[in-house]
Amino acid sequence: MKFCSNCGAPVSRQIPPGDTVLRHVCGACGTIHYQNPKMVVGCIPESEDHILLCRRAIEPRYGLWTVPAGFMENGETTAHGAARETLEEANARVEVGALFTLYNIPHINQVYMLFRARLLDMDFGAGAESLEVRLFSEAEIPWNEIAFAAVRKTLEHYYSDRARGTFQFHLGTIEPAARAVST
Amino acid sequence: MKFCSNCGAPVSRQIPPGDTVLRHVCGACGTIHYQNPKMVVGCIPESEDHILLCRRAIEPRYGLWTVPAGFMENGETTAHGAARETLEEANARVEVGALFTLYNIPHINQVYMLFRARLLDMDFGAGAESLEVRLFSEAEIPWNEIAFAAVRKTLEHYYSDRARGTFQFHLGTIEPAARAVST
Repeated sequence: MKFCSNCGAPVSRQIPPGDTVLRHVCGACGTIHYQNPKMVVGCIPESEDHILLCRRAIEPRYGLWTVPAGFMENGETTAHGAARETLEEANARVEVGALFTLYNIPHINQVYMLFRARLLDMDFGAGAESLEVRLFSEAEIPWNEIAFAAVRKTLEHYYSDRARGTFQFHLGTIEPAARAVST
Repeated sequence: MKFCSNCGAPVSRQIPPGDTVLRHVCGACGTIHYQNPKMVVGCIPESEDHILLCRRAIEPRYGLWTVPAGFMENGETTAHGAARETLEEANARVEVGALFTLYNIPHINQVYMLFRARLLDMDFGAGAESLEVRLFSEAEIPWNEIAFAAVRKTLEHYYSDRARGTFQFHLGTIEPAARAVST
C-alpha cells in the first residue's frame, strides 16, 4: 500500500496514538488503513469411501492436488464460501457438514477452515482454476503431490479419524517450512 | 475505496474477466482490490464458576457488556489474537483453550471465533476500550445489556453446555436483527 484509498494521497507507516502496531496512515486525510488476515474456506467432498480432489491450474502450486478451497468473500458464510469454491473449482454440488479443521498460517496472514461435505451428484468436472478433478480412495491419495500443508494435515486427520470411527474438530498452526539445506 | 492503493489513480467498480463479483479495479495500473471478511477473535475468561466480562468504553454499543474480543491482526494465530485482546481490554492474562463458538455475520462481513480460556490471576482491570471489567456468576450475567448477538448466543451455549456437563463446539450464523415495529 502506497496511496490512500480514500483520498489518493501518499500513506506512511506509523503507529497511531493508542495503538501498538505499525499501520498505513494517510498524511492528508488521516485515514488509518488496517490490514487483517484472510480466511480460506473449503471442504472435503465425500462420496461413499472416496473424496474429490482438484489439480491446480493456477499458481501457487500449479499441477498439485488440493481440496476445493479459496478466499471467503464478503456477504457469505464460511459454509456458503466452501460450497461456492467447490462449484467454481470442481463444478460440484455439495451439502456442507461440520467444520473439520481450522489452521492458522500466521506467516502468510491466512486462516484455513475446511468442512466435511457430501457430494450430491457425479456431474463434476474441472473448473477454470483446475486442470483435473477426480475421486480418490484412501489408497490413491497422491500424498507427495498435495498443494498445501493445511490440506495435507487435514487429509491426515480425515483418514486417521475415519479409521477410529469418529470425526472430531481439529485446530492447529502451520509454521513456515524449514528451508532445505544443501550439503 | 475511491483511489488505488498501489498507484493513487481513481478506481471503478467492475467485474474482472473470469470473476463473478464487482471489485474495485484501478483504471491506470489495473490492480484488482479484493475485499474479504474480517475475523473477530476473543475468549470467555473463566475463574472457577465466574467469567470475566468488559463494559465497552467505545462505540458501537458503548456501555454494554461483552467478552474480550476484537479484530485479528496479521501475523498472529486466532488463539494469540484472543489472548492479546484480553490483555488489551481487561489487562488480564489467560491460557486459551478450545474454540467454543464460530459465528458468521455475513451482513457485516465478520466471522466471530470465541474460545474458552482460563484466567491466570486476579490482577485484571479496565483497558483503554473498557469502562469496567468484572467477574460474573451465571446469576449475575446482565443478559439485557450484552453488546453483541454473537456474544449473547455464545454465553447461552456456555451455560447450557455447562449445565449438561460437556462443552462442545457450536457454529452458527447471525442474521440482521428484525426491525422493531412500532404499533
